[in-house]
Amino acid sequence: MITLSCPDRTGIVARISGFLAEAGAWILEAAYHAEPEENWFFTRQVVRASSVPFDADELRDRFASVAAEFGPDVTWQVTDTGEVKRAVLLVTKEPHCLHDLLGRVSAGELPVRLDAVIGNHPDLAEIVHAHGVRFHHVPFPGPGAQDRETARADAFEQVRKLVQTHDPHAIVLARFMQILPASLCAEWAGRAINIHHSFLPSFVGARPYHQAHARGVKLIGATCHYVTPDLDAGPIIEQDVIRVDHGDTAGDMVRRGRDIERLVLARGLRWHLEDRVLVHGNKTVVFR
Amino acid sequence: MITLSCPDRTGIVARISGFLAEAGAWILEAAYHAEPEENWFFTRQVVRASSVPFDADELRDRFASVAAEFGPDVTWQVTDTGEVKRAVLLVTKEPHCLHDLLGRVSAGELPVRLDAVIGNHPDLAEIVHAHGVRFHHVPFPGPGAQDRETARADAFEQVRKLVQTHDPHAIVLARFMQILPASLCAEWAGRAINIHHSFLPSFVGARPYHQAHARGVKLIGATCHYVTPDLDAGPIIEQDVIRVDHGDTAGDMVRRGRDIERLVLARGLRWHLEDRVLVHGNKTVVFR
Amino acid sequence: MITLSCPDRTGIVARISGFLAEAGAWILEAAYHAEPEENWFFTRQVVRASSVPFDADELRDRFASVAAEFGPDVTWQVTDTGEVKRAVLLVTKEPHCLHDLLGRVSAGELPVRLDAVIGNHPDLAEIVHAHGVRFHHVPFPGPGAQDRETARADAFEQVRKLVQTHDPHAIVLARFMQILPASLCAEWAGRAINIHHSFLPSFVGARPYHQAHARGVKLIGATCHYVTPDLDAGPIIEQDVIRVDHGDTAGDMVRRGRDIERLVLARGLRWHLEDRVLVHGNKTVVFR
Amino acid sequence: MITLSCPDRTGIVARISGFLAEAGAWILEAAYHAEPEENWFFTRQVVRASSVPFDADELRDRFASVAAEFGPDVTWQVTDTGEVKRAVLLVTKEPHCLHDLLGRVSAGELPVRLDAVIGNHPDLAEIVHAHGVRFHHVPFPGPGAQDRETARADAFEQVRKLVQTHDPHAIVLARFMQILPASLCAEWAGRAINIHHSFLPSFVGARPYHQAHARGVKLIGATCHYVTPDLDAGPIIEQDVIRVDHGDTAGDMVRRGRDIERLVLARGLRWHLEDRVLVHGNKTVVFR
Repeated sequence: MITLSCPDRTGIVARISGFLAEAGAWILEAAYHAEPEENWFFTRQVVRASSVPFDADELRDRFASVAAEFGPDVTWQVTDTGEVKRAVLLVTKEPHCLHDLLGRVSAGELPVRLDAVIGNHPDLAEIVHAHGVRFHHVPFPGPGAQDRETARADAFEQVRKLVQTHDPHAIVLARFMQILPASLCAEWAGRAINIHHSFLPSFVGARPYHQAHARGVKLIGATCHYVTPDLDAGPIIEQDVIRVDHGDTAGDMVRRGRDIERLVLARGLRWHLEDRVLVHGNKTVVFR
Repeated sequence: MITLSCPDRTGIVARISGFLAEAGAWILEAAYHAEPEENWFFTRQVVRASSVPFDADELRDRFASVAAEFGPDVTWQVTDTGEVKRAVLLVTKEPHCLHDLLGRVSAGELPVRLDAVIGNHPDLAEIVHAHGVRFHHVPFPGPGAQDRETARADAFEQVRKLVQTHDPHAIVLARFMQILPASLCAEWAGRAINIHHSFLPSFVGARPYHQAHARGVKLIGATCHYVTPDLDAGPIIEQDVIRVDHGDTAGDMVRRGRDIERLVLARGLRWHLEDRVLVHGNKTVVFR
Repeated sequence: MITLSCPDRTGIVARISGFLAEAGAWILEAAYHAEPEENWFFTRQVVRASSVPFDADELRDRFASVAAEFGPDVTWQVTDTGEVKRAVLLVTKEPHCLHDLLGRVSAGELPVRLDAVIGNHPDLAEIVHAHGVRFHHVPFPGPGAQDRETARADAFEQVRKLVQTHDPHAIVLARFMQILPASLCAEWAGRAINIHHSFLPSFVGARPYHQAHARGVKLIGATCHYVTPDLDAGPIIEQDVIRVDHGDTAGDMVRRGRDIERLVLARGLRWHLEDRVLVHGNKTVVFR
Repeated sequence: MITLSCPDRTGIVARISGFLAEAGAWILEAAYHAEPEENWFFTRQVVRASSVPFDADELRDRFASVAAEFGPDVTWQVTDTGEVKRAVLLVTKEPHCLHDLLGRVSAGELPVRLDAVIGNHPDLAEIVHAHGVRFHHVPFPGPGAQDRETARADAFEQVRKLVQTHDPHAIVLARFMQILPASLCAEWAGRAINIHHSFLPSFVGARPYHQAHARGVKLIGATCHYVTPDLDAGPIIEQDVIRVDHGDTAGDMVRRGRDIERLVLARGLRWHLEDRVLVHGNKTVVFR
């Protein structure tokens, strides 16, 4: 599969598809997008592996010179769709997103191998083990702890190393509820995915359902986005909402919102894993 | 029809339904809501007029003493569902909400008589007249006008008087795009309904679709709310959203958002006219 | 909690709420519905247990004489909302609804105790055990088996007895994929809940997603309904849909439809367990 | 703009985009779809007119030889996106879809010129005239009329001639409620668009909301489709639904369903006019 983005001009499609045709490649899926305001071009092309007389590495080498023609601002990658992607999940005590992802992976619904789950509480270890996945418990200091900042930095360093070991394609904050340090945001840029339990940009930060209840909104939502140093402000991958009414307490919203969190995270993660998400500035192009 | 809200306690339902049963009233619709946090009670009861041996005025007189039992904080009204409600619309140049409401009224879909449309531009007069409705043109001063504040106040005073003449049940800001002075917000409290073209509280103020486009959200929405002196912060009656994606320009969002604005305003207005909306603090109970 | 339905007439609400007021009962939730065509009345009332000076059994005894006043066609029940409801699940190999329900129960989202899971394949035993729930394997004869009808009847008899042991409030066909014999439909009437993977009445029977794909519909859905002897024709509790397009193969629809099946089954089951669903003829009143 | 469909094989994209690049064409939008089961390929490409040194007619002539390379089963057209499309509407008494389309056209939302409205009742003539559109009244024989079949055939012949005069890109049955004769279906194939007031394939034929009410479904919908001789069975362009509940009478469904009919018809018609809909067999590819 090839994904590419670069400043727009005439002939890009012709150049790429000409290259693929020459190689005998059978295009299974092709999507294009031109952003008129930014004058930027995006594409994603899925090629039937058996139609090409060489492997992904060779395709990457050959495509490099084509991509180079599109100037210094081009971003591109060639990936082997046969390769299984790997993910690491970060969790705390809230189980619903974890349960959902474990269930989807074990049912073969999500194209990913879960390498590890890292939790700052041990509560979810058992269910993770039942699915045959490794669980790492990395305790984080509580609100009143001594030297809290140092202890927190140490804990994050431990998480960083664990993640590094697995070198995953996706680091999923499945209701992790800890704000990442800027250094980790940088190191995991484009791979760290968060699920926020509001329809952003409404209700940034803590207790969004309680904020939503206080404002009296008639829909609540969830947002899956890439993590950046700005809290809940990274590029949005997916969002969805459900209807609530005056009969729903803040507690009801917490419970009902979980249905949307599960769906939005699962969809956003799938698209990320399938290389359907191209980031440009603080926005995403999602080729569904 | 009876609507009532008051501090909650036992026996309210029994008292009201006992009163109605004694009068021989056949209850067509009955809805109750108890807000546990606020300990507040809300009800709406629709009675078949022919089942009661007296008219709405008499029912109001008799019910007054029942309502008084619920303490000084009770709010209630008895209305005659046979009476046709009346509305005045405020518009500028944007035609879509106006067209939609005119179409619904002339098709008999909305239970309301349009007494007048007031526009700060003459553009929409013709279509209003085609529907047999009066159109008042009240020019507002433009950005560079001399003595703009005074001219603006004069224009609003003219609008106020026109509205007063009709004494409508609803004053609908159908994309009016002018911020009401606080005095008018007070005078029209509980009757002035605005349609805002975003999913509030996101994107308050001007050009919300452009704000939404810049943020890269995956859904856009509209909000129907009562007007209060705080801009776009009044009690929300109804909201809805539609999905957008990277292919939608800000202009596409403007166009596509109109579908949601039309629907949300029409629903919110209907519920207001049918006395389904009970305001409490800055929130609404909507008995649909 | 009291639920009741009966032919409509004046004074029912007054009688019930008078009875409750006399007992000092604090009404937490009250919902009423009058069906004008059928002239039938429905209500559901949730009372704060601590406000009543006696238990659910006593309330039931006292209420019996009130209910009797509403004629021979009255249907009612008084339940103790403190009592934990119990369910038995029937499954085959498809894991997604099972995973979802197990996850919800273990997260405390669904107010139910899972007494047992019965599967006609052993595949899902392990995950059921991981959640601490009993799993019964009852093999069913395959398509080419000898004396298939007899073997099938025997298998169903075994299932019947297992279910009888637990006497559950809900028997959930979580993608069970076997058509129940009429005798079981009768025995489990009002308790057996099925999830059908189409938006009924479209695409009754086998392979509904393939039927949907062949017809070229733009939305696919799922339906949660009570099981009756007529295949996929019982009273509908809940339905929902998601958008598909020409890019979705039948296989994509199978995968994507699971999200709707999970949600629709979880919602329908919750409402059933909370006594929010009143059946009348082949339709339901759902007091959400 | 170019749309094309043909049996799939390698090199189609390269051939088309190579042709366009050679002409210096700047591609504004490009969409591709390969149907794996049918092994069929579909594309739609929008080119900036000013980037090509010749007009649409010349582009059509030059592209013809490219298209011919894709075999005898290729279907294609080159259209000038600068050309204003024209439509004729067929109506009876139901005004809501007509009002909606008139409003959209006069607000500049729909890229179409309405050449005429043909009604079998005169009721809607006035509003059509108010929008400056021609109205033709063609009376149809009522249920008890003499020689009804002949009179009906005559009326349809009159409609056919009127439509022929305008030679429109779209013939919209905006709740026309008359079944077209097979000869007209053939003559208008690919141009006649109907809005059916149910979520097809459920509730084909008359009074679908009443059918939906009787079945107790929890969502009602509408379907926009191309007209074919099989009643309500043509290729589906667009569908959508809204939630209903036990409180909605059949009459409420009729009223509430109109919101979906309006939206679904407006969307389907827009996509047809923008050449986004490619028909293949009884299904559509919709490049949104």
